[in-house]
Parts: sequence; structure tokens; C-alpha cells
Amino acid sequence: MEHPENDPRYAGLNVNKGISQPPSVNPYLKKRKKRRDYSPGEYTEQILKGNITVLSQAVTLLESNKSEHRSVAREIIEKCLPHSGKSVRIGITGVPGAGKSTSIDAFGMYLIQKRNRKLAVLAIDPSSERSKGSILGDKTRMEELSRNPHAFIRPSPTAGSLGGVAQKTGETVILCEAAGFDTVFIETVGVGQSETAVHSMVDFFLLIQISGAGDELQGIKRGIMEMADGIVVNKADGSNIEKANLAAAQYRNALQLFPLPPSGWTPKVLTYSGYYQTGISEIWDMIDEYIAFTKANGYFDFRRSSQAKYRMYESINEQLKNRFYQSPEIKKELAIKESQVLRSEVSSFQAARQMLAMYFNETEKK
Amino acid sequence: MEHPENDPRYAGLNVNKGISQPPSVNPYLKKRKKRRDYSPGEYTEQILKGNITVLSQAVTLLESNKSEHRSVAREIIEKCLPHSGKSVRIGITGVPGAGKSTSIDAFGMYLIQKRNRKLAVLAIDPSSERSKGSILGDKTRMEELSRNPHAFIRPSPTAGSLGGVAQKTGETVILCEAAGFDTVFIETVGVGQSETAVHSMVDFFLLIQISGAGDELQGIKRGIMEMADGIVVNKADGSNIEKANLAAAQYRNALQLFPLPPSGWTPKVLTYSGYYQTGISEIWDMIDEYIAFTKANGYFDFRRSSQAKYRMYESINEQLKNRFYQSPEIKKELAIKESQVLRSEVSSFQAARQMLAMYFNETEKK
Repeated sequence: MEHPENDPRYAGLNVNKGISQPPSVNPYLKKRKKRRDYSPGEYTEQILKGNITVLSQAVTLLESNKSEHRSVAREIIEKCLPHSGKSVRIGITGVPGAGKSTSIDAFGMYLIQKRNRKLAVLAIDPSSERSKGSILGDKTRMEELSRNPHAFIRPSPTAGSLGGVAQKTGETVILCEAAGFDTVFIETVGVGQSETAVHSMVDFFLLIQISGAGDELQGIKRGIMEMADGIVVNKADGSNIEKANLAAAQYRNALQLFPLPPSGWTPKVLTYSGYYQTGISEIWDMIDEYIAFTKANGYFDFRRSSQAKYRMYESINEQLKNRFYQSPEIKKELAIKESQVLRSEVSSFQAARQMLAMYFNETEKK
Repeated sequence: MEHPENDPRYAGLNVNKGISQPPSVNPYLKKRKKRRDYSPGEYTEQILKGNITVLSQAVTLLESNKSEHRSVAREIIEKCLPHSGKSVRIGITGVPGAGKSTSIDAFGMYLIQKRNRKLAVLAIDPSSERSKGSILGDKTRMEELSRNPHAFIRPSPTAGSLGGVAQKTGETVILCEAAGFDTVFIETVGVGQSETAVHSMVDFFLLIQISGAGDELQGIKRGIMEMADGIVVNKADGSNIEKANLAAAQYRNALQLFPLPPSGWTPKVLTYSGYYQTGISEIWDMIDEYIAFTKANGYFDFRRSSQAKYRMYESINEQLKNRFYQSPEIKKELAIKESQVLRSEVSSFQAARQMLAMYFNETEKK
């Protein structure tokens, strides 16, 4: 599978420009290979035993750009599939500055210490159009969690198309669940597109807010607020408690403007302090309540099914594109069509139709 | 081309649910047909003469779900293509509540009355995931403009995939330019995805802001701020002038954090009042300056070329999907694969790969 940066679709565009690429041979993999080459069966065996090192290696394989790595990863995923699906998957998003890292650290430590959970923290961040690199993905942001043996933290797959990044994260969820992680966080940046992707793979979508945001923020977060199953207002501590309560009341009012979501669950708004670690057990009571509620009314299973179908269609769409753009005849003809489009001899849309006709005739001839 | 709602990709998903559909036979078209059937050549002739009624009918054809309508529209577009490209295309976005409609009304009347322009106002709004209908598209929002013979206002094509909506708007631009409109506004809601689509079809991207938004808003608008060629702070009137100036200063500071855009143009921040119609000539001076600057350094043409290519690739991707999902064999097999995915007999990704293999083998057999 070709990497998006070599994809002619992006030629001459600003989109995804300047995003640093992973080395085609991951140095970590190289080191491992010197030691030992596992078969997909051996990988799976170790993952099912909860071997985090091997889990991590398998994730590296599935994120690799080398087709032989991806092919091994696919086998591992299919073998792990019957052992997956048993975790609670929680999407977490919030404005930059809302204290997401501190909160995830606090939530995670609470779940491990008080509720005896095993936690995997993943991320989706296809990065903003022009800025380089990943905003997320730095383990040091979660100081406590990153040192805890019951937590597995994995940064966002390196930037590419959102679809590609989301698929890799979705596959990582399968591996983590097979390895015995019963809680999965999927973190995202608060800017729009990646939220939809995360929403399509979690059971509960948690939105972290802060006070002082006001009406304007509610306006812009509308699409994301509509996806939230719970909104939690951070920094409810010290002299800020009143403001946080006020913000919570505002969010409750705003939520009333939305129709009841298909889950039948009215999203709750809570306040907490990630830094002082207060109000956190209430958040987990809320999520437990939601899970029980949606399991009882059938929405939990419905949502999971819809998501599995959605991922299938997303994956089909990705592969359709990859096959098309990798065809040598298409590569050649694209250059010609492009110059015709640039000279306004043919409209972009007409050129597209002609390329498609050529692509499918060719295949018929074979 | 099948409408997205009949598209199996969306089966069982919340996405786009409940969005009202245009009637399959547009009553307006029916009425027109009784009078007279134009040939594509006659349509084009009338459009080139600046006949707004026929322009409007042609846009209705290209927005139609009937393939015979689309086919006529395609011919008209190809005939209009050599006469297109001469307008200044401006993308306009802003938070709900920023006063976008009032501003567009004021900007438009200024351009028509003081600068002798002919203005087309289009919109892209694929609508938010759960709320019904279109936020934009109501002509009554632009009271003055909608009564002016030098303005052509067309609401967003009815909700569907963003790609489909954007393509229709892109084609409408060609028709409007051929009809002699020398300025095109493309309006969008301020929530993320549609901004990228609009950015890919305009020469200048204008972001409307208001005061009192603060740091949080800057954070969340980051992706959109990076796309802006100019930021204008509305409601700089009466007792609000100072606040508006402060907000402008904050946006200027925020912009300094971004690298210089590929245009080489440092985005400007201005204040104005849409309601009191002050500060508007300065906005158009800025846009004129930008156009002159980017025409001089070659970026204007580069951007247009990149956009034309981008639209070609977008259109290819849409058509690839349409063909796949309309294949009768695929429709049948998809139902089977879906149930396998739902029983976790195969992963979503593996199922996708199997479908693709089947699709391409089939075509080879023919």
C-alpha cells in the first residue's frame, strides 16, 4: 500500500505537505528481527498471554508501510478477532488547553487503582493541514500512566489520510482487547474531522470542556457537542469552582436544544478537577450507567454493529482509491489529463469521468 | 448517480439520517418542461447572455438526482468552461452568531453599488450529523442582495456527501462565471470539514470573527485560522469598538504563531461593522491587494491549478465509490459480508479486502 505522500492525489496540494514520514524500515523492527522472527501464530499466542512487548511489536507491524509487515499484521488481527470486543471503548476529546493529558492521566490511574481495570490509551491525530508533526502521542504527557504496568500507551499512527490513521487505530483496538485490556481510551484533537472518526469506533464519547468558553465556543463545538454522550468540565477547583458550575449549567442548557440522541440517553454534564483528582469517580459512575442503560435497550450492540459496518465501508473506499492510483496506466494518463485540466480544455469533473471510463475498460480487456 | 441515502455505505448509520430529500422530480423543472425543452447549446447561449432564469434552471439540472438531467448539465458545463475562470472567488466562513448573513448582505451591496460588480453567492453546507436541514440557504437572510438584479443567490445543494455537495457547488461556479458574474462568494458553516472543501475552490478565504472569543476559540479555530487569507472582526460599532480592536490584536498575535503561508501573503486582520456598514471598503482593498500580490508572485495561478487538479481527484474518488456500490453483484455480496462482520467471523478490514478482490475479478471475467 503506497503512502499518501507518494499518492498522486496529493500532488501539488498543500494538504499534508511537510509531514514527516516514518522511516520505511522501522529501526525498532530491525532490532527485533535480529533477535527472532515470530510467526503470526506466535505473535497471537503472546498477545493473548498479555505480552505487552509483543503487542507493541504487532502494532508497529500494522503501522508499517511495508506490505509484508502489513500482511503479517493482518493475519495476527484475524487470529485475535474472536478474542476482541470485550472492552469498554471511550473516545475523549477537548479543546487544546482543556487539560486533556492531565485528565487522561488521572482517569487512567483512577481506573487502574480503584476499579482494577487494564487500560490502553490510543490516539487519532491526522494533524492540522499546515503544521508539522503530531500534537498528541507524547508518552511523557501522561506521567503516572506511562510508568504503570496495567496501562498501554500508544501514540497516534504517523500522519496520513484520516481514513488510514483511523483504520490503524481500529485494528490496534482489536489487538489491545485480545491482550486483555478491558478499557480503551481513544484520544483526539478538538478540531472536527478526527472526532467523527473516533465517534465511529467507541461506545462512549466524552467531551472535556472548561469554563469561560461562552456562547461562541458552544456554537463552534456544535457538531462535536452533538456527538458527546457526556460532557465534563475540568478545572473545577479552588476559586474556579463557581465558574465551572456555571459553565456546566450552560452546557446543560445548550444540550437541551439538541434532539434526544438515538441511544435514548440524555447526555450528562459533570464537573471535576484533573489536577486535584476530584469528581473522577462520578465520571466513571456515569459511564457505567450509560453502558448498563444502552446494553438494556439494545443500543450498545446496535452501535457496535453499525460501527463495524462503517469501518468495512471506510476500508473499501480506501482500497478502491489505492488500487486506482497505483495502476501504471492510470498514473501515465493522469499526467496528461492534469495538463488538459490546467489548460481548461476539459473540466475537472469531465476529466475524472474520462479517467474512470479508461480504468474500467482496461480492466475489461484483460 | 444514486443518491447517498440509497447508498449501502450509509445503511444502519446515523450519518445523514433524517435529512430531507429533494423530490425526485423537481416541480420547478416540470413546470419549465411544459413550456419548452432547451438543448444544451441553447442553455449555454442563454447563460452566456446573462439570463439568470436559465442559469438557475441549469443549476437545478446539475443538482438533480436524475442521470438524464445530470447528463444535460454536463454538456452545458463543458460548453461554459472556456468562458469561466474570470471571477474573483471568495470563501467566507465564521462562527454561527458572527453575523455572516448581515455581513454578506453588506459586502455584496457594497460591491454592486460602489465597485460595479456582479455577485453570485453560493453555499456549501452538508449539514451537521444529527440536525435536520440546512442552516444556510435561506435567501431571506440577505434581504437587500436578494432583491438586487446584479446578485445571484443560490442555497447549498441539498445535503449529501460533502464531496457531492462540493462538486455541485464547483460546477455552479463555472456556470455563474460564464453568465458574467465577476465575484463569487462561497459561504460555509464554521465547523471544520466544509471549510476545507471551500478553501479548495476559492482565491481568498475570509474568516469572520467576533470579539469576546478569547484563547479557547483561537485554539479550536486553529485549523480554520490557518486557512484564512484575511480575518475580519465584526460588530466593531458603538461601545463594542474597543473590544473588537482588542480581539483583532489577539488574532494578529495568534497568526504570528503560524508559519508564512505558501502564498507569501501575511494574513491581515481588520475590524468592521456589518450592521452599520463601516470598514467594508477596507476589506475589499485588502482583497484587491491580495489578488494583485498573488498574481504578481504567481501564486494566484498556482492555487487555481492546484484546485483544478484537486477537484479532478475528488471527482475520481466519488465516482470510484459510486460505481462500486452500484454493482449488482457487490450489492448482493455486501449483505453477506456485513452479516459475517456482525458475527465477528471476519474483521471489517478483511471483509473489505475480500469485497475488493471479488469486484476486480468479476470485472476481469467480463
